[in-house]
Amino acid sequence: MNKYLLVLSTILFANIANAVNIEKLDTKITTRGLFVQQQEIPTVNILLSFKAGTIFENGYDHGTANLVANLLTSGTTDKTAQQIQQELEKLASNIGVYSSRDDIKIEITSLTENIEPTLKILEEILTKSNFPDREVKILRSSVYQAIRQQQESPTFLATFKARKEFYGEDNVKAYISNFGTEKSVDLITQQDLLNYYDEYFTRENMTISVVSALGKKTIESLLDKYLANMKSGSAKQLIKPIPVTKANRAIIEKDVPQTTVMLYSPAISRTDSDYYKSVVFNYILGGGGFSSRLMEEIREKRGLTYGVRSAFEYDLPYPGIFTVMLQTSNKNAYKTESLIRQELVKIADKGITASELQNAKDFLTGSFPIRLRTSDKLLGNLDMMQEFNLSLEYLNRWTENIGDVTLEDVNSFARKFLADEVSVSRVFVGGV
Amino acid sequence: MNKYLLVLSTILFANIANAVNIEKLDTKITTRGLFVQQQEIPTVNILLSFKAGTIFENGYDHGTANLVANLLTSGTTDKTAQQIQQELEKLASNIGVYSSRDDIKIEITSLTENIEPTLKILEEILTKSNFPDREVKILRSSVYQAIRQQQESPTFLATFKARKEFYGEDNVKAYISNFGTEKSVDLITQQDLLNYYDEYFTRENMTISVVSALGKKTIESLLDKYLANMKSGSAKQLIKPIPVTKANRAIIEKDVPQTTVMLYSPAISRTDSDYYKSVVFNYILGGGGFSSRLMEEIREKRGLTYGVRSAFEYDLPYPGIFTVMLQTSNKNAYKTESLIRQELVKIADKGITASELQNAKDFLTGSFPIRLRTSDKLLGNLDMMQEFNLSLEYLNRWTENIGDVTLEDVNSFARKFLADEVSVSRVFVGGV
Repeated sequence: MNKYLLVLSTILFANIANAVNIEKLDTKITTRGLFVQQQEIPTVNILLSFKAGTIFENGYDHGTANLVANLLTSGTTDKTAQQIQQELEKLASNIGVYSSRDDIKIEITSLTENIEPTLKILEEILTKSNFPDREVKILRSSVYQAIRQQQESPTFLATFKARKEFYGEDNVKAYISNFGTEKSVDLITQQDLLNYYDEYFTRENMTISVVSALGKKTIESLLDKYLANMKSGSAKQLIKPIPVTKANRAIIEKDVPQTTVMLYSPAISRTDSDYYKSVVFNYILGGGGFSSRLMEEIREKRGLTYGVRSAFEYDLPYPGIFTVMLQTSNKNAYKTESLIRQELVKIADKGITASELQNAKDFLTGSFPIRLRTSDKLLGNLDMMQEFNLSLEYLNRWTENIGDVTLEDVNSFARKFLADEVSVSRVFVGGV
Repeated sequence: MNKYLLVLSTILFANIANAVNIEKLDTKITTRGLFVQQQEIPTVNILLSFKAGTIFENGYDHGTANLVANLLTSGTTDKTAQQIQQELEKLASNIGVYSSRDDIKIEITSLTENIEPTLKILEEILTKSNFPDREVKILRSSVYQAIRQQQESPTFLATFKARKEFYGEDNVKAYISNFGTEKSVDLITQQDLLNYYDEYFTRENMTISVVSALGKKTIESLLDKYLANMKSGSAKQLIKPIPVTKANRAIIEKDVPQTTVMLYSPAISRTDSDYYKSVVFNYILGGGGFSSRLMEEIREKRGLTYGVRSAFEYDLPYPGIFTVMLQTSNKNAYKTESLIRQELVKIADKGITASELQNAKDFLTGSFPIRLRTSDKLLGNLDMMQEFNLSLEYLNRWTENIGDVTLEDVNSFARKFLADEVSVSRVFVGGV
């Protein structure tokens, strides 16, 4: 429905060469707020992040966070969903709400000239949402449809199975789809949504990130004015799921021409002191698109897949998985598994070359400014920095920190990280 | 694989209030070229459009256009797919190739400083692609997977069935998925791809659109230099599929919680003199999100769906369909069909109100500049203007033309367009 609304992601091109000046917000609402001034375009982008994703659904049926997020703009005590949307349309503003495994994010985009009426709508949403029964019913039905669709996706099935094995059957919140199940969604009442809303949408449980053409002081006084009526509560404490230690091998039969092959093992976290080493390591192994070893061996040399990629789950505030994933014709599934394992052994045993290191650094540092260039990516980074308590100079020092990684850093990281190679687990989805 | 490449869509914000100055390109390559200068950001965006989509697959197996498009950057006589991608990565440039029902588009994005090496790669792709057998094999396997996945999408199934009934069983090219079928893709050889490439990627069959920070003369001489070696051939003539005239009703059983309901009838084309009337008509009936009559009646008043939308297929160079689509719980499928029909009868019989007309105009003219604001949307519009031979002042006059639509214009259009209401066809996908 938001097809014609203000485009969310605006490009801050002039910033590329410059350092990003990140400042702490000084508001009465919260101490967790960061601000970046931009001069390019007359917009204000605000990201509010609440510790309220699936992993925080304690005492609620699975899928509650998703329903709350999707219904947040669907009615307040004063306005219907229709009225809210029409007002936003008139302002060319956008308020998007998204739930994930660990949080619910509200992203606000407005022209500077319309920021006050937009924040007035935000205030109403944050203080007077009432989750009309009718809206709950409409949404529930389309969530059922989405759950059914998800079951058809080999990638979803592989990831779900990997997480279930990794965290163990009992750690349901750590592996369940954020949609929940048809059964669990069926149990969620309007009162549950109201309770969740009251408990999680408090200032203490919120982080603010702002990228704005309006100055810092103006933004601070606007936030003080329009968020003053937010409920008070407590910052939600995360109970980190503890992964199961044994390796696993699972096959999910599905009648499809290609098998999805996923290998996974415990990842390192965003705050690990090996973070920069792991970024370079991963680029060389399987993160670097056509330049990676896995692509070279499995696609370029043997033509067994259209693409293969490795990745760390850096964005999680609890232990995540390192994954290598590809799709290949059913008959080649085990062969590609062997090839991936060979590459893991090889990089751990023999290490990388000086030219691989240089290429990785050139690409990673060269592309970094581009990856910061849009306002929504910058907003996401501000939010992430707060989630992991990173330094205000984090973005400005990233390039330098990557540059400091040595050959021996990557090699010793690879040895350590892959020491227990037998602990790598596997999931196959398809006709193996 | 292009995750870190230059972001495609750049925002031309300063242009909003101004008229867009569209000029004809003066090159030796083709007479079909349009150019817009932008000052905001140091990039060049070029869109090459070839009459080479599914509808043009004469004498080729279905899915040939899609394979050609996907393999165009996967190898030339001088370079492998890997080399091409690595060179583009180093330049932070992007060359994307997309096939659709009627064309294959090549979209080139480059920083101004890297435009020459980027165009050199483009030249190589346009003159020396060789569709390596190995690459064909890899892609074929993932197309099979995509075809299988498509079959799980209720929206795809509804659209496919509607088109098949609308154009008739024999007009296969008009309704088949652009992926083709597993059977047809299996028949396509490397030689077929080379033949298709030679026949369709000629200057006579190409249209050029440019949005650029570099001036018109510079772009013209660059195009003359780097496209000079393109093959010569002929502009492909479209054999327009003739729709079947009888209305139809079809049910596709699928075990899902919601039924997809689609009503459709013959649409008007982009060049119809009633175009502007139809835009206003559609906004009021079902195009206007939360503001439309269909949303009001089916969602707001009765809570039967999460969203309902009506749309014309303006982008087709042959007769398309006007559709109304929604998803609802299985038991309400027929009820929503009746409600849609009631609204069609009502708008044809009773017409619209003055305030509906005003709201529609306010929104359509107010949002129009925003819809032009990104470089890729502007590029798309330049391409569309050439496809339908629209005036160079088309974009600048759009707002005025919408403003000129009267109440009686919309009412008489609605009466005429929906005169034969019984000819509206229906498709249901789900558990009705």
